[in-house]
Amino acid sequence: MGTLKDLGESGIIQMLRALTREHMPGLALGIGDDCAMFSFYDDAYYYLVSTDMLVERVHFKVGQMTPYQLGLRSLAVNLSDIAAMGGTPIASFLSLALPPHLDESWIKSFSDGYAYLTNRHHTALLGGDTVRSNGDIVVSVTILGKVLKGDEKIRSTAQSGDLIVVSDTLGDSCAGRLIADERNRRVEAHGTEEQTHLLQRYYEPSPRLALGQALSKIPGVHAMMDISDGLVSDLPKILSQSHVDATIQLDKLPISDELETECSKRTKWSSETMAVTGGEDYELLFTISESDLDQLPEPDRKSGIPPLTVIGRVSSMQGGEPVIHWERKKRHVTRDFRPYNHFR
Amino acid sequence: MGTLKDLGESGIIQMLRALTREHMPGLALGIGDDCAMFSFYDDAYYYLVSTDMLVERVHFKVGQMTPYQLGLRSLAVNLSDIAAMGGTPIASFLSLALPPHLDESWIKSFSDGYAYLTNRHHTALLGGDTVRSNGDIVVSVTILGKVLKGDEKIRSTAQSGDLIVVSDTLGDSCAGRLIADERNRRVEAHGTEEQTHLLQRYYEPSPRLALGQALSKIPGVHAMMDISDGLVSDLPKILSQSHVDATIQLDKLPISDELETECSKRTKWSSETMAVTGGEDYELLFTISESDLDQLPEPDRKSGIPPLTVIGRVSSMQGGEPVIHWERKKRHVTRDFRPYNHFR
Repeated sequence: MGTLKDLGESGIIQMLRALTREHMPGLALGIGDDCAMFSFYDDAYYYLVSTDMLVERVHFKVGQMTPYQLGLRSLAVNLSDIAAMGGTPIASFLSLALPPHLDESWIKSFSDGYAYLTNRHHTALLGGDTVRSNGDIVVSVTILGKVLKGDEKIRSTAQSGDLIVVSDTLGDSCAGRLIADERNRRVEAHGTEEQTHLLQRYYEPSPRLALGQALSKIPGVHAMMDISDGLVSDLPKILSQSHVDATIQLDKLPISDELETECSKRTKWSSETMAVTGGEDYELLFTISESDLDQLPEPDRKSGIPPLTVIGRVSSMQGGEPVIHWERKKRHVTRDFRPYNHFR
Repeated sequence: MGTLKDLGESGIIQMLRALTREHMPGLALGIGDDCAMFSFYDDAYYYLVSTDMLVERVHFKVGQMTPYQLGLRSLAVNLSDIAAMGGTPIASFLSLALPPHLDESWIKSFSDGYAYLTNRHHTALLGGDTVRSNGDIVVSVTILGKVLKGDEKIRSTAQSGDLIVVSDTLGDSCAGRLIADERNRRVEAHGTEEQTHLLQRYYEPSPRLALGQALSKIPGVHAMMDISDGLVSDLPKILSQSHVDATIQLDKLPISDELETECSKRTKWSSETMAVTGGEDYELLFTISESDLDQLPEPDRKSGIPPLTVIGRVSSMQGGEPVIHWERKKRHVTRDFRPYNHFR
């Protein structure tokens, strides 16, 4: 047998699933979507649960991210999973492993960041665990949400012919992380307006709850998820669960002016590659029948609805495994985008 | 401001509670008991959520505990929180931070241990997260359970005059941990039968679900919790929430023959101190009105009901802070047992 590096995250999950029950009364969805989903008795709602773990030096660096940003971010990534189902968050549970030398002001600032999003999205903090760490900081958040039965958006329901849509822009967070790395190495001491924007997109992702809830009311929106690992890693999850292929128009990918500007200054940066492979955007990715496209909400920053962009189309599956066809100006291009594996 | 060492776990929780909402529709209990507790609409049940985090080199040592034992234990401590409310577990969510060099057989064995208790207690594994760690292994489990409304047992309802009862024996797990430490230092290479028993009590705690559920049906059982940090740390949580004092009869503490035998061989070991301060017993601690004592279930290993021992009595609070009076043969003794602080 190999090491975890070979096995990867999905291998571990497969192993655990093979060994344990995955059924309970009222269960609608177990492992494999953004949230688990179940109902209680005749209740009108499905309840949603998701959990995410952030580890120092893997998901964040203490010198690069303020404790406020880490607190905010650790809840944001979980709220994003609720948004991806079209749900509303109810409560969160926060576990922290912290080294004993950490300053009290650190936890105060972390708490402020966590509380900001908690209060903004009317979510209760109902419990958790606080333990000592001998090394890295670890943050684990579990979130509970709900969605009216019938309004839930899951990954396995994309239909051939659907258009593929993403919210806002892609790749900004990836660039923000690289800029934070550069600054740590003091390559770039001064900061441009564009860099500030990209850093903000990395540090303080906006869970798309308002958008997810609006889309949950449109029956023509078939499959949905959030982009946490990057388009090239996440889209195949919809495709394989829905047994469909997809074609993505690379020239249609929504890329911010700020990302284009920063890429134009660096020979090694490609905005297209960042938009396709860069993770941590926490934008929504969904499929919709073409005839329902006019039902999509208008962008409105005030109510938290970002712009939406059609980037491709779902097609019927040709082989045993889902395939993404890449096109530029409607012409096929051969690209081998590498997905991200946490254990590499 | 000081460091986390000074602040301690309860200080961190106080800080977070001050900053966040702790209310949601249907909430019955937030932070401060073994589980959060809430109901949905007219449902007959309260739902229970608890979460625990285990960190390598803090809660376990890889060389001392097999991955099977760690897997079992990480679920057991959460099931124990459900037992402490008189509840039944429904589903768990498992998050793991693992170093990439870890062998695949490690995760297989961990999964086997986790699956054993999952299947034994008819609990579904519904989700989680698997991420890379650059150092220590971290396991975070969140558990969902339920209890019929009215059957829940909480911490704040102890009444003056109640008897104080614990299940099975205390201090075994503490001795087991010390024996494991000794073996690591090769002080004791051979193992006696007693040592095997104590190690087993440490490695494979039994969540007292059957007992908790039986006690939930006895209205005279007033307050309940599980002993995770040790009697001297945990009993005051019932006392302060119930605004009562307590008297504990030290000579009544249930101590196993195995623990007595091992203590008799070591000049520095006191079975009494271990029973009072040693954590990780995961036995139930509850108060019951004296007139209902005959309703307690008979010990029956087959159906998972351990022996029960009356160890003291609840009395009305004399000062502003709860006090435990220690007695031996009904005579007051002055003891200053030190509670355990994870951040020291």
